[in-house]
Order: sequence, then C-alpha cells, then structure tokens
Amino acid sequence: MSSRETDVHASEDAAPWQELASLVENGETSGLQQFVGELPASELALTMSRLTAEQQSAVVTALEPIDAASLVEQLPHAQALELIERLEPETAAAILEELPSNEQADLIGEMDDVDAEAILRRMDPSDAESARALSHYEDDVAGGMMVTEFLRYSDQWTVTQVVDDLRQRADEYRDYDVQYAYACDAEGRLTGVLRLRDLLLARPAQRIADLMIRQPVSVRDSTTLDELADLFERHHYLGVPVVDSEGRLVGVVREAAVAEAWSERQDNDYLKSQGIVGGEELRSMPLLRRSSRRLAWLSVNIVLNIIAASVIAVFQDTLSSVIALAVFLPIISDMSGCSGNQAVAVSMRELSLGLIRPHEVWRVWCQEVVLGIVNGLALGLLVAAVAFAWKGNLYLGLVVGLALCLNTIVAVSIGGLIPLVLKQLKVDPAVASGPLLTTITDMCGFFLILGIATLLLSRLAG
Amino acid sequence: MSSRETDVHASEDAAPWQELASLVENGETSGLQQFVGELPASELALTMSRLTAEQQSAVVTALEPIDAASLVEQLPHAQALELIERLEPETAAAILEELPSNEQADLIGEMDDVDAEAILRRMDPSDAESARALSHYEDDVAGGMMVTEFLRYSDQWTVTQVVDDLRQRADEYRDYDVQYAYACDAEGRLTGVLRLRDLLLARPAQRIADLMIRQPVSVRDSTTLDELADLFERHHYLGVPVVDSEGRLVGVVREAAVAEAWSERQDNDYLKSQGIVGGEELRSMPLLRRSSRRLAWLSVNIVLNIIAASVIAVFQDTLSSVIALAVFLPIISDMSGCSGNQAVAVSMRELSLGLIRPHEVWRVWCQEVVLGIVNGLALGLLVAAVAFAWKGNLYLGLVVGLALCLNTIVAVSIGGLIPLVLKQLKVDPAVASGPLLTTITDMCGFFLILGIATLLLSRLAG
Repeated sequence: MSSRETDVHASEDAAPWQELASLVENGETSGLQQFVGELPASELALTMSRLTAEQQSAVVTALEPIDAASLVEQLPHAQALELIERLEPETAAAILEELPSNEQADLIGEMDDVDAEAILRRMDPSDAESARALSHYEDDVAGGMMVTEFLRYSDQWTVTQVVDDLRQRADEYRDYDVQYAYACDAEGRLTGVLRLRDLLLARPAQRIADLMIRQPVSVRDSTTLDELADLFERHHYLGVPVVDSEGRLVGVVREAAVAEAWSERQDNDYLKSQGIVGGEELRSMPLLRRSSRRLAWLSVNIVLNIIAASVIAVFQDTLSSVIALAVFLPIISDMSGCSGNQAVAVSMRELSLGLIRPHEVWRVWCQEVVLGIVNGLALGLLVAAVAFAWKGNLYLGLVVGLALCLNTIVAVSIGGLIPLVLKQLKVDPAVASGPLLTTITDMCGFFLILGIATLLLSRLAG
Repeated sequence: MSSRETDVHASEDAAPWQELASLVENGETSGLQQFVGELPASELALTMSRLTAEQQSAVVTALEPIDAASLVEQLPHAQALELIERLEPETAAAILEELPSNEQADLIGEMDDVDAEAILRRMDPSDAESARALSHYEDDVAGGMMVTEFLRYSDQWTVTQVVDDLRQRADEYRDYDVQYAYACDAEGRLTGVLRLRDLLLARPAQRIADLMIRQPVSVRDSTTLDELADLFERHHYLGVPVVDSEGRLVGVVREAAVAEAWSERQDNDYLKSQGIVGGEELRSMPLLRRSSRRLAWLSVNIVLNIIAASVIAVFQDTLSSVIALAVFLPIISDMSGCSGNQAVAVSMRELSLGLIRPHEVWRVWCQEVVLGIVNGLALGLLVAAVAFAWKGNLYLGLVVGLALCLNTIVAVSIGGLIPLVLKQLKVDPAVASGPLLTTITDMCGFFLILGIATLLLSRLAG
C-alpha cells in the first residue's frame, strides 16, 4: 500500500496524462505506442479522461488499430462510446474491427444511426454484417452478450480435418476464448459440442460426430440474463452455444460475459437507488447534461416532499402550542426512511437471489412486521427518553416515542413490500422504491406525531 | 413472461417445497434425487429456504454427496453455510469433498473452529490439507479465489507423457475448468503455460519445455481483487496461475471467479449503503439476529439525527414566531440528503472505475460545486415559489429558497468529497457516507433556514 501511495504522489509532479499529452502534441507515435502499452490498466481510464477530446482522438488515431482497440476495451462504456463517435469513420471502423463481436455490437447499437452507418460501410463486409445483426439484440439477452468468434465444424468432418484447420488458421484463432468446438449439420443447426481435449485423445480418422457430446446444452438468442445466470450457477460451463429460432448456431455466450453483465446491472441499480437515474454519469460529461439528469429525479422528489410536508401545515395550531415537536419532525422522517430502506434493500436482494417471488406480499409483510415491532419499540423508547430528559414532560416523551414506534412498523412493512409490488407492476424497483417509501412514511409519520399530540394537547401544552 | 406467471400460480396449489417435504417425510430417496435434479436452478434456493432446518438436513443427507454438493453450490452463501454447519460432520465432509477447492475453503473458513476441525478430520487428508491452507486467505485476494484443481506437469515431460496422463486420468480431469496446463521445475516453481491446443499440433516426442509459453503472466497469492479485475480487463485470459512468495505454483484464478467476487462486493456495498451493515440478511434468519443487526446501525443514526435536530431547538423562538417554517424543515433535510446522495453515488462509481483518486478532493469539489449552484438555484426557486404561493409572503419565499439553494451546494460538494475522504482515512465509504452526509447537511440546512429567518424576523412575522 505504501508503495502505491508513493506512486500517486510522485505522479503529481509529472502526471501520466501530461506526459501523454506532450507525446501527442509532438507527434511521437512510437513513444506514444510504448507509453500506452506500459501504462497499468488501472491508470488508463483516468489518464485518458484527463485529456481533451482532441487529444484523446489523436491518441487512438496514432496507435495501431489493434492497440487502440485494446485501449478502448479498457475504458468505461460511456467513455469509449464518446471517444469512438468523435473519430473519423475510417479510424473508428479499423478499431471496431479489432474488438470482439459483442463489444462491436454494443458500441454500434448505441451510436446514432448516421454515425453507425458511416462506420459500418467502412468495415469489412462480413464484420459489418455480424455487427449489424448483433446490434439489434437487447444488451441483457444471450444475443446481446454472445460473441461470434468460435470454432464451428461440420459434424461430418474427421479429427484430421479439424486438426489441419486448427493448424492452418492458428493465427486467426489465437484470441478465441472458448476452448470448445461446435459441430453443425448441413443447415447450420447445432448438433454437438467437441472438447479440444477429446480431439487429443482420438484417432485421426474418427469422425467428430462420433466424438462429440450430442444434444448439447444450448440457449436461445432471446434467453434473459437471469436465466443465463441460473444456468451458469447450475453448471460449470465456460460458455454455452446460442441458437436462433431455427436451431442454427449463432454465437457463444461466455460465463465471464454473463458475470460482467450481472455486475453492470447491480451497479446501475445502485446508481438508480441513489438518484442517478438517467444513465451513467461521468464527471467528464458536460455540466448541463449532468445537472439536468440529476434534476429530473430531484424535481419529482421535491414535489413528493412538499405533498408529504403539507400534512404538517394541517396541524399548525398544535405545532405552535408545542413548538418542541418541530425538533422531532425531521427525526421521525429520517429514521423511518432509514428503517424502511433497510427493508427495501433486503427485499431487493431476496428478489435477485430468487428467495421470494413478487406475489409473496403476505409472507414478507409477516416477516417484516414482527421485526418492525421489535425495532420500533427500541427506537421509540430511546427517542422518548431523550424527549423526556429535554423537556421533563412525560407526555411529550409518550407522543414522540409512540409516533416513532408506530411509524417504524409502517416503514419496514411498506419498505419490504414496495419492491415486490413495483415488480408486479413492471416498474423498476431500483428507481421508484426510495421516493415512494419516503413519501408514504413521511406523511404517515407527520400525521402520527402531530395527530397524537393533538389528542394529548392539554397534557403537552401544560 | 405469461407462462412463468402461470407457473407461479400453478405452484401455489402444490408448491415444490411441499412436494419436497413430503418426499423427505416418506423417505423416498430416489424420488427425492430425481425431484432435486429436475428443479430449475431458479427454484432451488427458494424451495430449500421454505423447508425447516431438519427437512433441509434430511434432503442433503439423502442425496448422493456429489448431488448434494451441486445443490449446496447453488444456494446463497449464508444459506449454504447454515446448512452445512447443521449436518453430521461425516455427511458435511463427504459433501465438501465434492466442492471445488475455493468453495470448500470459503465454507470452512467461516465456520467456527470446532465445527471446521470436526469436518476436516473426516475429509480425505490431501483435500483437508488444501482446504486448511486455502481457508487462511482473505476472500478478496487471489489465494482466496483460486482453485487448486488444475493440470500441472514437469517441464521435462514430453507431449506423449502428457497425453498419456490426460488419457489415464480423464475421469478425474472431467470437471477441471481451465483449459491450460502449467509446467513447473523440480522445485514446483512455475516455468511455463501450455495451451492444450498446442499439444494437439505438436510432435509426440517434443518436450513441453519447447512448446510452452515461457515467463507466463502469473499473480501472487496476495494479489487483490482490484488488481485481478484490472488484469482481466487488460488481457482476455480465462484464468491466471497463482504463485506463492517462492514462485511456486499454488493455484489458478479464473476470470469468472474474479467477476463473481466483484459483483459480490458491489452487492455488499449496496446493502451497506442502505443500512444492512452487519453482513448478509436473509429473512429466514432468526428474528433477533436480523433485528439487532439492523438496530446496530439505526441506533448510531438516531443519535446523529438527534444531534442534527438539536440545531432546531436553538432557534425555538424564531420557529414559534413563524410556524410555517416547520413545514420546510423536513423538506430541506430530505432534499439535501437526495442531492448529496447523488454526488456520493457518482464518487463511489468513479472511484471504483479508477476515474478519480482519493486525494483529488479539490478537483471533485470544483466539479460538484458548479453543478450544486445550477441545481440549487432550480430547486430553491421552486420551493420559494411554493412558499410564496402558500403564505403570500415574499420574505418567506426568500428564506426557504435561499436556504435550500445554499444547502444544495453544501450537500453536493460534501457528498462528492465524503467517499474520497473516507477512503483516505481507510473507513468503508459504503457504510459511513450516508449517515455522515445527512448529519452534516441536516445541521447546516436547519441552521441556514432558521438563521436567515432570524435575521429577517421582522419581515416574516409581520
């Protein structure tokens, strides 16, 4: 750790992006090539993001396409997309051709159509065709995650034919990931999977149809991320073949691609739950884009907040008689939000682990309400003691304690249910759970504390 | 989707856990075996979690160890751990032996020492030794993620020797994941990596030392998850060999294991940010454990809340003169929390993508403060308009609008910085950012609205 710290401080003298910028300005292509090649992966995204748009374009244009592609692959998706869109179509096409087919398709799919067409027209026709086909798939189905670089042989071939092909096209295959070959019939339908290890142990004249695993596990191109995650949890495959509606082999989904897509989804859910809803935000994006995306969510929230707070306005008379209550309004609001968010988080997680189903509202309610009673009593007693100690009025303690206790029960039960109900309504629970929860618990909490206070007003104002 | 819905409703009549429970009660071992084998992965965790502890133990005891192991692997970690700990040590040992070495070690490492010893003593001595060794590693370093099932050969062997070994031990190797073989010298130090594909193309008498890739990429057993994620982002390896301090080959880390560990960490960060701090919570856990874990975090929070709200108490006189201000206290508190949390989320993400370094406090502050001014003005104007419309007092609008505007600027700049500062102080930002943020923004917000109101009191109370 300490050596890393030192590095960081040393780099403040001559930051890598300054070095890179000066290499670009001076047109030192070979120095640039070497510099980028030697920069640790963990520094690359940072370094590129500190350059101006023009400098970034100059860097990738100066690199060999294969090196530029390797750089682009290591950037966060939003950063890579912006970079590629700004390049000359020729340069962009040359770089895209060096990317794995699924990343090609991801980038092409998110560009505007004119940019995408300009690039596709300049790519190798077969690469372009495959990128076009892949870019129509959603990101979270097998078709959107698969690669089209895999070994495919006719099931009529012999071991010798396959080994000869492997030998002849060794260069092309060097970067192929999955260590299986797939066997197809004359119509291109998947008929078997061949482990390279089994080739090693076979007689040269043997037909691969006799060697392969028949009726192999495969998935449709429309298989969802959830289903793929289940599959890879169940079986230790490195990848599975993907077939279209006719059973024709169209690609291979790797286990690692599924794990990455899963982690991306979690990442997005976290951002959404914290109010970054409109998509990825990088601080290198233009101010107004960042600001308006955040505001879009905040302005919905403030309207909900004003609605909730209007409950307080109704009880103005009570409040002016017992001004001490005003101190406890934000406490009730914050604490109920916290308790409710814990229940939301547990429900979100149990949903994603498949431990509850969206319709099991009653079951979750029962499990949360008992916990709400226990925690509500604990928190209520604590805040009641504080109120009593402050004002010496037992009834004030009773009002705030009772209100917090009851509202905690409301918050955890509602918090537990909201993700289930939103899921049933096909609304994204990561976005909507938080605002919905706090609006309900605020209204209910203000109503409880001020309503109970109104009932006991003679004891409080005394 | 609609077919899935139908399934869910159909299963309400005879839920899979009811069927499974009755198979267990009636001791129908073969029916049980078949039932578990046919249950979709997505139903397995749910089904098991609905059985009593005794029924769960009976299920895995009735299964063949290899089938039980495959079931255990598909359960969420906390659920698997509880299940294994409750089993007879003999049964547990038999099941653990069928698990990959890293999962063995994960489970053993988290059991209490007596349970772990009882199980290890009943395992095959070499399996037990490897599990013991692996369980000493932290979960988030290469040693804790690696498997010890891999192909290792002396670099003096010939292709024929290797192929013979592959043939003879084909059964044992069937479940090995990584499709490389590793070559070591007489001291067990890693000297090369051999692609099985290259074996296929080699002459039988060739020594593997002449065939292998020399000075292969390898990592130390102490390499962190972040460093591994960087490595796999940079290179398309399926796995990398892991060496100890002497350069001896001790295991292989798979890309998929790294992606999974990464996604687990994000998952935990999300839970922590929502106040589930003490570790995974499943609703099947005992009530008091769930309740006390949640309370531990809530009770810190309520103390912080009370401290923040005490600012309101200081301004009681102002508040009782202008009771309308009480309506805006929770609005200021909630909205500043929301704005601040957005900035926290963006910083957390930029930290994890490596786009900012923890010491770059000044840079982040500059980027957030301009955004804070834009969003603060927008939100401030909105709430000022509402206040004016409600009470017809321009000064009330001015007070609440100005307070919200200023506090939004405070909230986003503090929110952006908190994760960086906590990281520098080696405090987990996922846990501490939220409570710290809301305490500071609440205090500041209450002080701003009530302080400005006190200055303008003559205009407000008029």
